[in-house]
Amino acid sequence: MKKSLQTGRTTVRRLPKRGAYERDTINRILDEALICHVGFIIEEQPMVIPTIHTRIGDALYFHGSAASRMLRWLREGVPVCVTVTLLDGLVLARSAFHHSMNYRSVVVLGTAREVVDRKEKLRVLEAIVEHVMRGRARDARRPHENELKSTMLVRLPLDEASAKIRTGPPLDDEEDYSMPIWAGVLPLALTASEPIADPRSNLGIEVPEYIRAYRR
Amino acid sequence: MKKSLQTGRTTVRRLPKRGAYERDTINRILDEALICHVGFIIEEQPMVIPTIHTRIGDALYFHGSAASRMLRWLREGVPVCVTVTLLDGLVLARSAFHHSMNYRSVVVLGTAREVVDRKEKLRVLEAIVEHVMRGRARDARRPHENELKSTMLVRLPLDEASAKIRTGPPLDDEEDYSMPIWAGVLPLALTASEPIADPRSNLGIEVPEYIRAYRR
Repeated sequence: MKKSLQTGRTTVRRLPKRGAYERDTINRILDEALICHVGFIIEEQPMVIPTIHTRIGDALYFHGSAASRMLRWLREGVPVCVTVTLLDGLVLARSAFHHSMNYRSVVVLGTAREVVDRKEKLRVLEAIVEHVMRGRARDARRPHENELKSTMLVRLPLDEASAKIRTGPPLDDEEDYSMPIWAGVLPLALTASEPIADPRSNLGIEVPEYIRAYRR
Repeated sequence: MKKSLQTGRTTVRRLPKRGAYERDTINRILDEALICHVGFIIEEQPMVIPTIHTRIGDALYFHGSAASRMLRWLREGVPVCVTVTLLDGLVLARSAFHHSMNYRSVVVLGTAREVVDRKEKLRVLEAIVEHVMRGRARDARRPHENELKSTMLVRLPLDEASAKIRTGPPLDDEEDYSMPIWAGVLPLALTASEPIADPRSNLGIEVPEYIRAYRR
């Protein structure tokens, strides 16, 4: 397994110091993100569609309805770009020009193939549930055969990718540091609030710990 | 100004009930999102890059370094897809199959052009700061001429777009409602925590109210 996923096409050109190519760094960002944006081309028009992913080893997986136009297209092996972005904070500089955001993003290039093996499909679909919420797969009712058949699954190898990361305080022009303007970072995170029970869930079931204590 | 942004290419095919095309609905989603994902094609390869946007009237604007490969490409008028996604919650159904997410997303198709007029550039750059954090533009040091020159700005008209929205509780198969599995929604939101002052910001300046009370 390659440790660096850098290629000419995935090299960060603007602000190269923000680029990272190690598999571990890339994996951590992919694993924390709940959704990704999948880019593909239909009739010379780029399309960007949000979807759920999961990573197992050195591959990303996407699932959806067997009728999904995106998945039917991806499984043909067309060029794909998958991008994941985690927003970590607003960077408030003294100058408007040096305002920025702290973020961790990953761009993956490649081509996908359909996963048709029943056992592998079951395993990956369970991993998708666990990716979104660890602990949930054990509780949820497992897929029936017809559900399995109506779900398409595709696999994108993680061979060519890059991460781009910004952290830390604003970087202002030297002469601006003395200006009487508050500067710093406002941290942002995707956070959960109180679970809302399904109005039809009236069996007096307690909210499981993995939901109550959910954190990303 | 067109009220509906629906075209053949922006019609939601999967789960058409989730589709929305009214300008007001689309604008609200674009205005709440802090970042978008811009899709374009370079040498038959789709690329998806996260960036900051702002909306003014019936157009989206993107800015960055005059050296940005993406912006230099976009201003040529190549086909673009801009996608914005707000994640509102995890939908926990009784069956693994009916798990979902509550979200609001927008897909915009079109072609962009560079904004070169100095006054319009200043106005839009200020709007970008205000889009990210209302109240900040008045405090921040305004752009110097060289900063303005080294910033590229492009405009994408909002003519062709769609929103896709899921809200509410899980929808399970009728026979699964009696299963003893907790079901409902875990709401998610991008939230701010305590501002972190720049370690070089030692002038005893108070954190402005628009930062302390920041909400999306």
